[in-house]
Formats: sequence, structure tokens, C-alpha cells
Amino acid sequence: MPAPRALIFDAYGTLFDVHSVIEAGRAITGDPQALSTLWRQKQLEYTWLRALMGRYEDFWAVTEQALRFAVRRLGLGATDAQVAALMQAYLSLAAFPEVRATLARLAGTPLGILSNGSPRMLAAAVESSGLAGTFRHVLSVDAVKTYKPSPRVYDLGPRAFGLPAAEILFVSSNAWDVAGAKAYGYLTCWCNRLGAPMEGLGVGADHEVERLDQIAARVGLP
Amino acid sequence: MPAPRALIFDAYGTLFDVHSVIEAGRAITGDPQALSTLWRQKQLEYTWLRALMGRYEDFWAVTEQALRFAVRRLGLGATDAQVAALMQAYLSLAAFPEVRATLARLAGTPLGILSNGSPRMLAAAVESSGLAGTFRHVLSVDAVKTYKPSPRVYDLGPRAFGLPAAEILFVSSNAWDVAGAKAYGYLTCWCNRLGAPMEGLGVGADHEVERLDQIAARVGLP
Repeated sequence: MPAPRALIFDAYGTLFDVHSVIEAGRAITGDPQALSTLWRQKQLEYTWLRALMGRYEDFWAVTEQALRFAVRRLGLGATDAQVAALMQAYLSLAAFPEVRATLARLAGTPLGILSNGSPRMLAAAVESSGLAGTFRHVLSVDAVKTYKPSPRVYDLGPRAFGLPAAEILFVSSNAWDVAGAKAYGYLTCWCNRLGAPMEGLGVGADHEVERLDQIAARVGLP
Repeated sequence: MPAPRALIFDAYGTLFDVHSVIEAGRAITGDPQALSTLWRQKQLEYTWLRALMGRYEDFWAVTEQALRFAVRRLGLGATDAQVAALMQAYLSLAAFPEVRATLARLAGTPLGILSNGSPRMLAAAVESSGLAGTFRHVLSVDAVKTYKPSPRVYDLGPRAFGLPAAEILFVSSNAWDVAGAKAYGYLTCWCNRLGAPMEGLGVGADHEVERLDQIAARVGLP
């Protein structure tokens, strides 16, 4: 298999640690992990449901709706100011520890992001994690008003890079996102940080790593 | 608001208790509730993901794929025979206690089912729960090869009954299903058995009850 001619990364959970919002949750709950987990679960569910219903709203709106549901479901109280503070955490996410060095090493190959995030959210996360200037294309689903794993979303990558999907490596830590990208036609790498089993969606990853710094060696990049 | 001219029920979780499969899980785990919960969660996720990916497989296949993932994810061992035994439980689900009397009372109005289930699964559940002859139409997503909450699924109801959606009451215990049906145009009733908060999908139910036997009085049926 020849080395990929471009790499496209998922953002949340792959480059940026969404559970870094946990600390912000301590203001309203003694179990911020439970809040963070339910918030993330509902955030994803609402993207899938809204995409299927044909009722797109951007990821900022969906993320806040998921947070407000999680707060109610867990029986917590939260003022609008506390909700706003939690949402702000999404604009200053931390990158996983190996991200900067990994992307610097891969800089000889064009790099991109393809994410559910709104353009504003992605710009803020790239900036706050010190990754400005790293990516040739930062692509948001907002351009097509639907969500992963719709093929219309994955189609943004080949269009932006001017390359066939089969020559682009799509990297995600979300197994369902890998399945969607593979079904569309990308080369795929699953960054399986937690040693989880693959989802039962009938599509597997081409490569699997535990951390992003293992990708270059795995796919034949310098 | 005039009384509805037909009632369409969701099947799993609304008429039939999917957690009645829990007992079957005791053969492979000491915590069958955890298995049942993850199995159900993945079953729904896989319908949404496959629908978005445009990779429909029927609900029997998706349900088995979800079960096999849940078994792996929980670190359980299960033989093919044990998996088959758990799957069989889906063909002999119990109806919730109030279902038969409720549907008998409503029999003056045309009744239907609209479900993710495959035709074979639905026929088996209707038969095993003693509801044969109750429904004018038992509608499966299999006719349109996608899943709820796609509008193409909800469109099956008005076509079968020959009535506008706004004159049909759609009843589901799944809040996201109610949201999808309402977004499509049905009158809706959320059977909120567990007192959960409404999902944050920007669409509310027209009516809310705790049990199905409260519907008639709520919507003006005899």
C-alpha cells in the first residue's frame, strides 16, 4: 500500500481531549465524569438524530442542547452562567499530549481536519492548542449542513485536497467515524486509545494505533 | 383539537418490553441489566449510523451486531448458541401489562404499528404477545430500507392509512422517536414511563402520558 498523500484528522476525541471539560463541571456536580460522559453521548446522538430528521443546527447549538439535557437528566441545577462556563471549555480544549510533535513530524504531507465542529469552534480549538498554521484545510460539516457519518461530510476532504479518497488517510479515535470514512472510500486509521472493540457496523479500519505518534511508521511516512 | 382518526404505535419499548430479554442474559453474565442496556444503546446507535451511512441492513442483523459488540465490550464470553438464544428472546417479547386492555378499548379507531423491526420480528412479537388481529397495519422500516427518525419512515403511516399525518396520533415511549414523528407532521403522544426529561431536539410532544391506558382520555377518544 503506497503512503497516503494527505492526512485528515477528526477533531474531538482525536486531536482534542473533550474530557478536558470535566474540570469545568465541578462547579455543578460532585461527579463531573458522569456529566461529561452523558453530555458527550447526547451530543453525538443529537447530531445523528438531527441529520436523519433533516433538522441541522450547528455543533455549538447541539452541544449546548446536549449539555442542558444532561444537566436535567442527572437532576442537577445549573444557572445560565454555569452552562455558559461549561460551553466555554469547548473553545479552549487541550490537545492530547502527543499531538504537537506528531503533526510536526508529519508536516511534509498536507494535513487537514474534518469535524462536526462549527467553524468558530474549530478555529478556537486549533488556536488554543497551539496548532495554528499546522493544517492546510480545516473543514466543518457546516459547509454541507449535516453530520458524520453522512457521505456528504466525508466528501469535503477529497474536494478540498484535490485527491481521491483512497489516497487520503482519515484518522479518528471514534470507531463509528472510521467506519463512515471507510464506507465512503478513505484509507483509514483508528486511533484506539482505550483498547475498545471495533463497532459492529460491517466496516473495519485499514490501520489501528493506540496513539497518534504511531501513525507515520504504520503507514510508511517518514 | 379533534380526536385522532387513527393511532400508530412504536413497537419496542412502547408496546413490547425489550428489557424482558434480561432474563435470557443470565446465562452469560452476572449483570444482565448492564448487557441489556448496552445492547439496546448500540442497537439504536447502529440504526442511526447505518441510515446516515446509507448502509441499511435489517433490524435482525443490526440487533445481532449490537449484541455481539456489547458482549465483547463487557468482556463476556458467549457461544454462538448463547447469542442465538438471546436473539430468540426478541421473537417472544412480553407486552407491557396495560397493552391488551388499552388496545381493546381503542379498537373503534384504526390501529397500527410503525417500527424499526423487520417484518418477521414484528409478526413474531405481535403473535407472542397475544395481539394478533389488533392492528390494521404493521409497518416496518424495511419497506424503505432506512431507519427512524428519517421522514421516509414516518411517511409510511399516512400512506397506509390514507390519512394526513396531522390526523394520526403517533405514540412512542422513545422521546427521540416522538421528536422525529412530530417533525414529520404527526400528532404525537410520548409515553414517558420513567419520568425522563424531553430530549433537546427542538421538537416537543403534543401529549405526554405515563402509561398507554391514559391515552384515550387525554386525546378525546371514548
